Amino acid sequence: MTRTVSIVLSWIEEHRDELVSLLQRLVATPSVVGSEGACQQLVAELLERQCDRLDVWEPDRAWLEAHPAYFPRGVGFEGRPNVVATLRGSGGGRSLIVNAHVDVVDPGAAEAWPHPPWSGAIADGRLHGRGAIDDKAGLAAMIFVARCLTAVGRPLRGDLVLQSVVDEEWGGGGTLATIERGYRADAGIIFEPTAFEVCPASRGGMAFRVTVQGKGAHPVRSYEGVSALEKALPLIPALRALEATRQDRLRSPLFAHHPIFAPIVIGTITADVLPSKVPETCRFQGLYGYGPEEAYPSARKELEEAVAAAAARDPWLRDHPPQVEWLGLNKEGAQIPTDHPLVGTLAKAFETAAGGPAKIAGFPAGCDLPFL
Amino acid sequence: MTRTVSIVLSWIEEHRDELVSLLQRLVATPSVVGSEGACQQLVAELLERQCDRLDVWEPDRAWLEAHPAYFPRGVGFEGRPNVVATLRGSGGGRSLIVNAHVDVVDPGAAEAWPHPPWSGAIADGRLHGRGAIDDKAGLAAMIFVARCLTAVGRPLRGDLVLQSVVDEEWGGGGTLATIERGYRADAGIIFEPTAFEVCPASRGGMAFRVTVQGKGAHPVRSYEGVSALEKALPLIPALRALEATRQDRLRSPLFAHHPIFAPIVIGTITADVLPSKVPETCRFQGLYGYGPEEAYPSARKELEEAVAAAAARDPWLRDHPPQVEWLGLNKEGAQIPTDHPLVGTLAKAFETAAGGPAKIAGFPAGCDLPFL
Repeated sequence: MTRTVSIVLSWIEEHRDELVSLLQRLVATPSVVGSEGACQQLVAELLERQCDRLDVWEPDRAWLEAHPAYFPRGVGFEGRPNVVATLRGSGGGRSLIVNAHVDVVDPGAAEAWPHPPWSGAIADGRLHGRGAIDDKAGLAAMIFVARCLTAVGRPLRGDLVLQSVVDEEWGGGGTLATIERGYRADAGIIFEPTAFEVCPASRGGMAFRVTVQGKGAHPVRSYEGVSALEKALPLIPALRALEATRQDRLRSPLFAHHPIFAPIVIGTITADVLPSKVPETCRFQGLYGYGPEEAYPSARKELEEAVAAAAARDPWLRDHPPQVEWLGLNKEGAQIPTDHPLVGTLAKAFETAAGGPAKIAGFPAGCDLPFL
Repeated sequence: MTRTVSIVLSWIEEHRDELVSLLQRLVATPSVVGSEGACQQLVAELLERQCDRLDVWEPDRAWLEAHPAYFPRGVGFEGRPNVVATLRGSGGGRSLIVNAHVDVVDPGAAEAWPHPPWSGAIADGRLHGRGAIDDKAGLAAMIFVARCLTAVGRPLRGDLVLQSVVDEEWGGGGTLATIERGYRADAGIIFEPTAFEVCPASRGGMAFRVTVQGKGAHPVRSYEGVSALEKALPLIPALRALEATRQDRLRSPLFAHHPIFAPIVIGTITADVLPSKVPETCRFQGLYGYGPEEAYPSARKELEEAVAAAAARDPWLRDHPPQVEWLGLNKEGAQIPTDHPLVGTLAKAFETAAGGPAKIAGFPAGCDLPFL
C-alpha cells in the first residue's frame, strides 16, 4: 500500500458518517426520471468547491433524437441538466471518467414502502429509499471521492471527470449527451450497484410487445369468436424455450454464475376490457435480454422468428400473424477484455479496501456502459 | 283473426312512425345503469295518460341487500326509480306483467360508434344508439302497447302491468324490487332482444375472477422468480375443457342450436404492472354461463374443482392454490314448460303478426326472468 493510498483510506474511514448523511440528502431529494432538476442542483452545489470546472447543461434533444443509439420517449430535457465536474491532474497521467445517474424510477404507491421512499431512513443497518442503491449510492460515492481527493491534496496526474447524468432509466440520453459535449477519457467507470463485483461487461436489454389478434364475440355467440388470449398462450412457452437455447449459446465465463443472464421476462398482459366478451386483442410486454457482444438487430430477429414459428403451428395465427413491436427502451450490452489494465487496477483497489479478492463478473442488466 | 286483433294490428301499422320516434326519444335520453333518473321521468310522462295507476318509487336498498338473489354493488337507488303502470282489465281475465329495463351499459369511447351513442340516428334501415335494442326497443314496444290499447278502447279482461325497471345490467335490483312492492301476476314476459324467438327459458351467468400467485423477481434474477402469468396458463385450457363437457351434460332441446349455450368466457387478464419484472400476481376475469335448471352453488363448485384439478398437476400451484372469486354479478337462469299456455299464445301472436311460425328457443344470456 503506498502512502497516498493509506492517507486516502484513513480519510474515508474518518469521514464515514458524512458519506452516509450525503447519501441521505441525495435520497431525500426526489429525482424521478424526467424531473431530475432539483437533485442535480444539489449535486452541482456539492461538487462546485471540489473541482476545477463545473459544467451544467441541458442535453440537446434534437442531436439525441438523430443519434442511432437513442430511443426518443417524446420527452425533452428542459429543467433536466447533466452535471459534470472536472478535477485536473498535475499532468502526465491517464484520464478517467466516472459516471453515476441521478434519475430514479417512480416509487409507485408509498404504502408499499416499509419506510417512505424519499426518507433515506436507516433501519437494521440499511438505508432505505428510492434510488438508495440505484444509483444515489454511486452518486454519493462519486461526490465523496471528489471531497476526499481535495481534502488530501489532489494526488492525481491525469484528469478525473465526474459525471452526474439524467435519463438513465429511460434510454441513456444523459450519458450519450456527454459524448456530444466532448467528454472522452482513457477509461470510464459506471457506478451501478454490482454487489461489489468488478464488471467488465454488461448485458443488453430491450422492451418488446407482442399483439395477438382474435375475433371478438358477445358471450351469447362465444363460439363465433376467437379468443385472442387463448391464441396468445402458446407464444409464451415458445419464448421461454428461446430463452433457454439463447443462454447456452451466448453465455461467457463472465456470466457463468447466472442460470439465466439474458432473460425473456413477460411482465404485463392485457386482453380487452370487458370480462364477458371473447377478447379481440391480447397484448403482452416484456424485457428481452441480450448478450454483451450480440448485435441487437439480429437478437430482435431471433425473437421475431421464434414468435412466427410458434404462430405457424396454429391455423388461425398463420392467417393472423402476431405482431412484435420494439418499444423505446433499448440498452445495448458492452464489454472490454478481462485483461484490460483497468480491470486489474480495480480488482487490486477492491482487494486493498476489502481485504479479499475481487470477483470479476458480467453485469446482468442494461446500463449506460455502451455509451462511454 | 278476431276483430279486436285486426283493429289492433291496423292501429300499429298506422302509427309505425310514432313507434320509431318514441324509440329515438328513449335512446336520446341517457340512462347508464346507476343514472336512470332522467329516462325514467320520461317513461313516467309517456305512461301517465295511458294507465289507471302509475307507481314511481326508489327500490329499498336495505331490503334488496338482505335478499339472497341480490348481489350488492355498493350503489343505492337514490334518483333511480322504478316506474310501473297498471292498466286494469274489465274483469274475469288473467293478469300479465310485461317488463323492460331502462338502464344501459356505459357506451365507452364515443369515437368507437359509427353514430353517436345517444343519437338514435337512423341509417341503412337501422336505428343506432346505446340501448337501442337492449332494452329501449322493448321499452318503446311496451309504452306503444299502452297507447295502442288505450286508443282502441282497452280490450282487456285481466290487468296488464307495465314495468320499466332500473339496474338490470348490474344485478336486477329493479325487477326484484317489484316483488317486494307486491307486483304479482298470472304470467310475466321480459322484453329482451331475442331475435324474434319466443324464449321460455334463459340461461344463468355469473362473473368470476381467478387469481394466481407467483413469486416476483427483478429481471437480473428472473430465475429466482415464478411467473404468475405462466402458472396461470394451464388453467385456461382447463376451463375450456370444462365448458365442453358442461354443454353436453346441460343442453336441452331449447338450446340445441347453440354450439355453446353456457359459455366460459375469459375476457380480461392482468399480470402486475412492470413489463420487466417476473409477475407476482396474475388475474383473469370472465363470465360463467350455467343452465336454466342448474343451481348456482353447484355450478360454482364445478368451476372451482376444475381449477383445483388443473392446479394439482403443477407442484407450485399445488402449494399456492389459485383463488376463485365470484363477483357481484350473478343472473340465474329460469325456465317454464314449453307447453305452458303463454308459450302457445305468444307463438300464435307472432304467427299472426309475422305471417310465419315462431321459433321457440332458450335465451342464451342472463336476464331478469328468474325474478318474475
